[in-house]
Amino acid sequence: MTDTILNHKSIRKYRSDSIDEKILEEILIAGTRASTTGNMQVYSMVVTKDESIRKQLWECHFKQEMVLEAPVHITFCADFNRFNKWCRQRKAVPGYDNYLSFFTAAIDALLVSQNVCLAAEERALGICYLGTATYNARKIIDILQLPSGVVPVAAIVMGYPEEDQPLTDRLPLEGVVHYEKYKDYSPVDIDRIYADKEALQQTLDLLEVNKKETLAQIFTDNRYKKQDNVHFSREFLDVIREQGFMNDE
Amino acid sequence: MTDTILNHKSIRKYRSDSIDEKILEEILIAGTRASTTGNMQVYSMVVTKDESIRKQLWECHFKQEMVLEAPVHITFCADFNRFNKWCRQRKAVPGYDNYLSFFTAAIDALLVSQNVCLAAEERALGICYLGTATYNARKIIDILQLPSGVVPVAAIVMGYPEEDQPLTDRLPLEGVVHYEKYKDYSPVDIDRIYADKEALQQTLDLLEVNKKETLAQIFTDNRYKKQDNVHFSREFLDVIREQGFMNDE
Repeated sequence: MTDTILNHKSIRKYRSDSIDEKILEEILIAGTRASTTGNMQVYSMVVTKDESIRKQLWECHFKQEMVLEAPVHITFCADFNRFNKWCRQRKAVPGYDNYLSFFTAAIDALLVSQNVCLAAEERALGICYLGTATYNARKIIDILQLPSGVVPVAAIVMGYPEEDQPLTDRLPLEGVVHYEKYKDYSPVDIDRIYADKEALQQTLDLLEVNKKETLAQIFTDNRYKKQDNVHFSREFLDVIREQGFMNDE
Repeated sequence: MTDTILNHKSIRKYRSDSIDEKILEEILIAGTRASTTGNMQVYSMVVTKDESIRKQLWECHFKQEMVLEAPVHITFCADFNRFNKWCRQRKAVPGYDNYLSFFTAAIDALLVSQNVCLAAEERALGICYLGTATYNARKIIDILQLPSGVVPVAAIVMGYPEEDQPLTDRLPLEGVVHYEKYKDYSPVDIDRIYADKEALQQTLDLLEVNKKETLAQIFTDNRYKKQDNVHFSREFLDVIREQGFMNDE
């Protein structure tokens, strides 16, 4: 497993080969072994193979080609719907229509998703997370017919890789780990932590292509812009509310 | 790895043996190989071994004995502080003071946490997630001195197990997986999905000890009560706001 963890690469090009039912089921079972709050399993996985539904999802995920290519699409959802229904059928009154419950269920769903990804990679499959799952949560809810109490928090594509990628660079460990307490970063720390990333040929190429002075500007001005973040923030908070998780406001 | 995933058990009793520095570092590096939005790595891991700080954390985590016992405590944080500082030092204006950015960073942190747990378990260590990390986020922020832009979203204890546990029961796969679209649960579905769990000897024992008619009532009346959820919801939303992630409201 450690090798699987250490060799993870997001795959963005897929062969059309389908995934054997038995293998897929093993991978989903691996998902369910993740830690879950109070063993409530307040999540769902929606596994979509149908091409026409995947095409609708592709629209939600900014039309990234891999969503059409990869034979399997999994949407991981924070899900209190099933648990609430169970409570009501068992003379119990659920009190899970609040933000904490949403976040608890989101944690559950995300731990499951990572297990699923690693179990898939161990079987020579490739995966890629789609960060867009939260951006267009409402559209995904419509397409997948998610009822109240269910919110998509992550999505992945899965299939046999058509490409081999080098490992992506990461910040040095000291950049993301703090010992005992948080030690805030001085300007000198920031320079040191980002030095290697900034010196990569890939970074220099990006600066040239994007005609930017710094890599950070490519993030703030091109990739993750304030106006988009603000827009999708409001949308996502509205969705959390609409799906019944903000009744304590 | 699949064996590691399938054999996961939350460990609640620990030996006092410390964890070798080299092994801990390998585990943390495994964490950093998780998928991360746009390779921004908007998370931090705070690794706490100091006994007096762990004692303070123990108070936040409802005084669960294992927090005192386990030699290592890791708090996983959504962290845009480092990224924002980098942007400002590089003539870029960060627009990450909004809810979407918080949630993106939380996803990052949670995927890292699951990699860390599995890498630890593969090295014969045990872990247990502490669901209380979000409940008392403000106190954790004070203890670990987390600056603006940083919110704890998960915490684990880690150490060599003093106990061996049987695998925890899980709902059948059909209970948590939907194919193509979400198929909502009928009353008959709910009965079938929860039947095995409800028939466990452990469940029968719980009903007797708690003098309850149904297992669901133990969740709603004892373990995860509405009044607590509402209280901690407000607290957690306030913390997200105080740490600078709701400036788009």
